[in-house]
Amino acid sequence: MAGEPIYIGILGFGVVGSGTYETLVSNQESIDRKVGRPVRVKKIADLDWSTPRRVSVPPPPEMQSTDAAEVISDPDISIVVESIGGVNPSREFLLAALRAGKNVVTSNKELVARHGEELFDAAAAGGCDLMFEGAVGGGIPILRPLKSCLAGNRITRVMGIVNGTTNFILSRMAEMGADFADSLAEAQRLGYAEPDPTNDIEGHDAVFKLAILSSIAFESRVSVESIYREGITGITARDMQYARELGFAVKLLAIGVENDGALEARVHPTLLPLDHPLAKVSGPFNAIFVHGSSVGEVMFYGQGAGAMPTGSAMVGDIIDIARNIRSGSTGRIACTCFEDRPVRPMDEVVTRFYLRTRVVDRPGVLAAVARIFAEEQVSLASVLQTDASGDSAEIVWLTHKTRERQMQASLRKMRDLPEVREIAACIRAETDA
Amino acid sequence: MAGEPIYIGILGFGVVGSGTYETLVSNQESIDRKVGRPVRVKKIADLDWSTPRRVSVPPPPEMQSTDAAEVISDPDISIVVESIGGVNPSREFLLAALRAGKNVVTSNKELVARHGEELFDAAAAGGCDLMFEGAVGGGIPILRPLKSCLAGNRITRVMGIVNGTTNFILSRMAEMGADFADSLAEAQRLGYAEPDPTNDIEGHDAVFKLAILSSIAFESRVSVESIYREGITGITARDMQYARELGFAVKLLAIGVENDGALEARVHPTLLPLDHPLAKVSGPFNAIFVHGSSVGEVMFYGQGAGAMPTGSAMVGDIIDIARNIRSGSTGRIACTCFEDRPVRPMDEVVTRFYLRTRVVDRPGVLAAVARIFAEEQVSLASVLQTDASGDSAEIVWLTHKTRERQMQASLRKMRDLPEVREIAACIRAETDA
Repeated sequence: MAGEPIYIGILGFGVVGSGTYETLVSNQESIDRKVGRPVRVKKIADLDWSTPRRVSVPPPPEMQSTDAAEVISDPDISIVVESIGGVNPSREFLLAALRAGKNVVTSNKELVARHGEELFDAAAAGGCDLMFEGAVGGGIPILRPLKSCLAGNRITRVMGIVNGTTNFILSRMAEMGADFADSLAEAQRLGYAEPDPTNDIEGHDAVFKLAILSSIAFESRVSVESIYREGITGITARDMQYARELGFAVKLLAIGVENDGALEARVHPTLLPLDHPLAKVSGPFNAIFVHGSSVGEVMFYGQGAGAMPTGSAMVGDIIDIARNIRSGSTGRIACTCFEDRPVRPMDEVVTRFYLRTRVVDRPGVLAAVARIFAEEQVSLASVLQTDASGDSAEIVWLTHKTRERQMQASLRKMRDLPEVREIAACIRAETDA
Repeated sequence: MAGEPIYIGILGFGVVGSGTYETLVSNQESIDRKVGRPVRVKKIADLDWSTPRRVSVPPPPEMQSTDAAEVISDPDISIVVESIGGVNPSREFLLAALRAGKNVVTSNKELVARHGEELFDAAAAGGCDLMFEGAVGGGIPILRPLKSCLAGNRITRVMGIVNGTTNFILSRMAEMGADFADSLAEAQRLGYAEPDPTNDIEGHDAVFKLAILSSIAFESRVSVESIYREGITGITARDMQYARELGFAVKLLAIGVENDGALEARVHPTLLPLDHPLAKVSGPFNAIFVHGSSVGEVMFYGQGAGAMPTGSAMVGDIIDIARNIRSGSTGRIACTCFEDRPVRPMDEVVTRFYLRTRVVDRPGVLAAVARIFAEEQVSLASVLQTDASGDSAEIVWLTHKTRERQMQASLRKMRDLPEVREIAACIRAETDA
């Protein structure tokens, strides 16, 4: 391949950095032709060069550096790939790179979710590209399709299984009747969950991804703080079984909705009809479901994490930027947050609800709880009373669409009712779109 | 929106043309901002302006033309959208447009499949863009993701449900036990099938789409003529039932495979394991499954046809081109058929086979047929003998991986065997990837 090479610098040579390097090197010839110029890694900065990496051919010594500044300030390098993770020092490094006129590729979801605006401002000032396809859904193409292929649509809904750890756990609970703790342990054993799983199981990771996904889908910046978050630690095998009997799967969903100019942005366990495309996504896979005004329903499915899938996304970004460099059009697609749409308070969100209560087993209790729902104008779709064990009975309620505020008011009143022993589960359900 | 407008001309104002127009007009403000300049339709050519179209606001009289040449030669127009369909006169119109330096958007699968090279040559000569995202999978983003997001992968397999008509028919047969003729009639009644359904049910439409899909996936031009084709008219409810019992769904798949530098390209009914993501795609929906070296498995799902979904894809292309016009980078991604990979003759293709035979019901017949398989080195995975009605019995065979040539040789020998009354069905099965 003739022409001046386009040089890449990589910051961080862990799982994602080495996956990106491996993908670049093993497909070099094809990438060069697609770009029309050679695309070469020039320098990689990492503090640790002693740990072996899973790469076919290790980077030669002259490529290895321990100083990020050496990469960022190298005048030959026009694309800086960040694969360090975390907000600091990644943020400082990328701001320095963008201010030095470098184009940037990252899959750092927390960084983009929290500091996207600042990074995009720096990119715009220098006419540089900032791309982060790998930040949501790993290797699944989703952000570029939203920004390009689906750009003619008004997007009204995004619903994603964006965390493979929790989907693995919930799938296992559904398929084997296993409980949460046991499924988490199995996920850890298989490497799908971290030793400290908080970030995944409490929904933080999904919140970062939803902030990015909904900002792009709705063309309005959605902050991490504005997103409602609820993890999966309260989900039991019992509730999954009831849900299935009612015709639902239970998934941790990242949901963004646009409606009358305002947004919803929420991460929580969700009952989804078993025939919904997302309900069939099992194991560690991810999928993102999108509703657009013209396209209708589309879904993107694949591996949402891992060195090579994320490397695939990073290299896709690198090729896109390299094509822009070759055709003199970096900065071709800048930030698309043109709007300033408010995110509705959770109180105003309307969903359906699955509720499991344990009550005293005597006449009139069902009527008493039903009366609370009536007072709060919560309409019921089905009621299932079962399992009178000892002096208590279990009642499973499925509501029609209900405003969160009314549901919470109902729950407060129920807790004050002496006949209600326990509100054992309260899970939202989505039956539209 | 300030700046000189980017003007669009539309050739053909039928279903797709009006869907494109509607999408452009109803999202005008958002599109303008994304592009950074106003994007406006200037002229639409159609021979018939008397039939009402499904658009919110009909194009004003000054936009209406009956002469394609008027659109193509208009010096203000920089993007020509073709929505006439068919090869002629679309081909001449688009060659003229490209030679006049216009960028082109089309969803005309037959035209691109048959004349893609000629069109790309004309586009390259003028430094123009030629885009056709809507030609495969309607509104589903698939071609641009292959060319960009997944560009760092070596793609080894594409498998698509790319024809909604046949998927509707097969889904109905599977779900209701209905036969082919009845399901086709229902598809016609609902508007999913044309009055003359040949193009869909015989697999021609899927062949055009596979030619495009595999040319892009494998970076090597796959001609329409090199693609093996078999429609769904021979599929019976009985075979769908047996397939399900064996753990398979039956789908019409467009399959492209790259292996040792050579390709497979084939459209035929296929048994797929029930837990494969494509097996769960039902009704008129489309989905394309891709296997890439880094990304692993990804799947793209959505509505594969219709005015608005296809309009969504066309407008995505228009926005992409308009961004190139604004940033002076039209022709940024040209034809990517860099390789010249041969397509293997069908005889050499290896798949599994489902076979249903009716045989004379007497001792030794099963052994006689099994001996033929043994002679041709066809290895059997399962055999199911049932339904002795009168003097004949039905035997269902499922093979392990078998070279097509050996299966065909087996079938010839079986036809010569007096005990074999009928080879009632022979359907390929895919159990990998």
